[in-house]
Amino acid sequence: MRVAVAPNGPELSNIVAGMWRLADWQLNIQARIRFIEEALALGISSFDHADIYGDYRCEQLFGEALKVAPHLKAQIQLVSKCGIKLTSDNHPYQLNHYDTSAAYVRAQVDASLANLGVEQLDLLLIHRPDYLMDAAALAGTFRELQKEGKVAHFGVSNHSAAQFALLDDQFPLVTNQLELSVLEHQSLDDGTLSQCQSKCIRPMAWSPLGGGRLFSGQDPAALRVRAVLEDLAKEYSCSLATIAYAWILRHPSRPLPITGSGRIAALKEATAALEVRLSNEQWYRLWVACRGHDVP
Amino acid sequence: MRVAVAPNGPELSNIVAGMWRLADWQLNIQARIRFIEEALALGISSFDHADIYGDYRCEQLFGEALKVAPHLKAQIQLVSKCGIKLTSDNHPYQLNHYDTSAAYVRAQVDASLANLGVEQLDLLLIHRPDYLMDAAALAGTFRELQKEGKVAHFGVSNHSAAQFALLDDQFPLVTNQLELSVLEHQSLDDGTLSQCQSKCIRPMAWSPLGGGRLFSGQDPAALRVRAVLEDLAKEYSCSLATIAYAWILRHPSRPLPITGSGRIAALKEATAALEVRLSNEQWYRLWVACRGHDVP
Amino acid sequence: MRVAVAPNGPELSNIVAGMWRLADWQLNIQARIRFIEEALALGISSFDHADIYGDYRCEQLFGEALKVAPHLKAQIQLVSKCGIKLTSDNHPYQLNHYDTSAAYVRAQVDASLANLGVEQLDLLLIHRPDYLMDAAALAGTFRELQKEGKVAHFGVSNHSAAQFALLDDQFPLVTNQLELSVLEHQSLDDGTLSQCQSKCIRPMAWSPLGGGRLFSGQDPAALRVRAVLEDLAKEYSCSLATIAYAWILRHPSRPLPITGSGRIAALKEATAALEVRLSNEQWYRLWVACRGHDVP
Repeated sequence: MRVAVAPNGPELSNIVAGMWRLADWQLNIQARIRFIEEALALGISSFDHADIYGDYRCEQLFGEALKVAPHLKAQIQLVSKCGIKLTSDNHPYQLNHYDTSAAYVRAQVDASLANLGVEQLDLLLIHRPDYLMDAAALAGTFRELQKEGKVAHFGVSNHSAAQFALLDDQFPLVTNQLELSVLEHQSLDDGTLSQCQSKCIRPMAWSPLGGGRLFSGQDPAALRVRAVLEDLAKEYSCSLATIAYAWILRHPSRPLPITGSGRIAALKEATAALEVRLSNEQWYRLWVACRGHDVP
Repeated sequence: MRVAVAPNGPELSNIVAGMWRLADWQLNIQARIRFIEEALALGISSFDHADIYGDYRCEQLFGEALKVAPHLKAQIQLVSKCGIKLTSDNHPYQLNHYDTSAAYVRAQVDASLANLGVEQLDLLLIHRPDYLMDAAALAGTFRELQKEGKVAHFGVSNHSAAQFALLDDQFPLVTNQLELSVLEHQSLDDGTLSQCQSKCIRPMAWSPLGGGRLFSGQDPAALRVRAVLEDLAKEYSCSLATIAYAWILRHPSRPLPITGSGRIAALKEATAALEVRLSNEQWYRLWVACRGHDVP
Repeated sequence: MRVAVAPNGPELSNIVAGMWRLADWQLNIQARIRFIEEALALGISSFDHADIYGDYRCEQLFGEALKVAPHLKAQIQLVSKCGIKLTSDNHPYQLNHYDTSAAYVRAQVDASLANLGVEQLDLLLIHRPDYLMDAAALAGTFRELQKEGKVAHFGVSNHSAAQFALLDDQFPLVTNQLELSVLEHQSLDDGTLSQCQSKCIRPMAWSPLGGGRLFSGQDPAALRVRAVLEDLAKEYSCSLATIAYAWILRHPSRPLPITGSGRIAALKEATAALEVRLSNEQWYRLWVACRGHDVP
């Protein structure tokens, strides 16, 4: 189930397990190991981290599991992100801001490697577009990290097409991790997904279930979308979540959705979507339900 | 009066006769033949169709005329479009949606050729941007249709600059058919017309009279624009419509306006615009009238 | 303190003196000479003009000073702009509009040279994007003016990324002069500054103090920004204006801010910013103060 994100890699699992809320799940080390093993059994071998997730603690929680079960390291791929300076008790910045300087990126990569207890990240993303990014300098930092073996591949997250192009001109990026769901899909129109397709790279899709709004939102768009999801779930004998993932997977940019749950059952709903191919008509039914008007 | 739409063709008449409402005009076959002949006499040799116009019936109405007067075929150029699945009595889709798969595009081209009773379309456009378009696959379909002689050239309609680029990278497109009129000209600012100019291709302009709003609209913009049109029409001793067409023709992307009327007099108002060259000042007077504020 | 705006020049001073309001300052010729000399003493050797500034009179006022003190000519760089037809008593157009025809651009360059009393402009900008611009023809005009020695380099002002690309494809432009200040920075997001960085050209920044709103604006954004400016000014022992200039200079596109004042003290506040390097955190504090929300 692993797919090449870009012509020269990396190869990640088509569904990626998001570790954003790992700390919230309150799993002891054995439960964390079990979660990784069960994800692997489902074909989910790639894990999406960021230095700042869980108030900077998620990578360490994950690393503790790998330390006890080191055989897992060879079976998984690790994605992480850096570039956000998030204020917290241990990081008393005046306010959240961005930093893509060589010093900060190197420091955060070293921290991620130490916390995860591995020697290399398969993929490092710049978390948010930093207005102060020096593209040439950052590309140099990428080259150094690659040469040192600390990071295999590089990409970005939440970058506009112009912001992506600026860095990609200096260093070939392998992905743009974007918000994409039936409820939030401005990336369909703002040129970012078109750019991924033009460059033959696959986007990663965060918040594939609209942050839960898909299931509990009471706004008109959420209500309309939920009704269609229920219809289609009945037709395919699957869950609403599976249809929501299938909607993302159907896009020709071939996105890699990132799950958000600590329940294996939820991960199964995601991988089940790999077996569901929505028709064009079904895909547009969901698009129309969200927009509240016909296609033009 | 024929002009090259792109460096390698096709050559269309500078004013194109739009067949969108052919069914509404309720012309018998002889009247349809007369319409074509009179258009040709005015120098309008290109006819803009789509598979779905007139609830999928316009192409056939046009083809019936060509069957009775087959000598006309060598004198005209035929543009058609496909990609929209429009619900109707004979096409009971659940909702309108798009389809740019090989199977559907090929089926619709075959239907257009059969309905028109010709062996080749001069130009085929993808009617609307299909989020589910597989650019590489569609380019392959274009190459096959071209090789088989069924379609000579390909373009798109209503595509954003990024959407255009995605397909154009795979297969060189010869036009982007866009809405453009004194009242609706966001294509001036959204990069689509600039892209046409950069690529040395000519856009086609649909709804050149703002769908009639230019003449009967009671909104402030329509009232302001109409007042200036009346002024300029007096100055050039022509109709308001002629000035509205001249405004489009003055743009450096050199658009090909598409008429919408079944009256030959209306077509004459369009071709008359080829003799009117608005000054920069007159062009901006109309722009300012629509926007309701000075140029910055 | 001179910097190359583009790989092949021109070299301008990092702070450029804007002559927009020269006529308002009501300086006699000796005072104008003194202003130029004092600017030069501060390292500000480049002066930003436009044909239309001061109701078409500023260039002449500047030229009168150069005529009396011709030794200054070799020490300064002159930037001018054309393309706007501004209505005034001596220019009774029906309305303000744009004109980038060969005839008008050539006429305005000749007028600028005559009014300034020099043989060459170091840099000529197209003042506003002209929808009616014929890019190939304008590029030809640029080449002629360059060959004739009348203008050394060419750029644009206020052009979108697509509009810039259209002309740049025909003739390599050296800058895009954009509005940029702590209070007005949509160029951070609209792709124009990214484009400058991708092309290794430096933008020029007009209205760097938000047209005075930075100091006297009573809207929430201005109040929030002013509070942070006061904080930082205290920290760096400098003026609010110096911090506002430092904010612009910190952007990786390396903009050249254009002053607007006739007071040498105000120019000193601008050049003082060359010695202030805001931290990432300080830069984002000002961005957040303007936007009124955290970074995402």
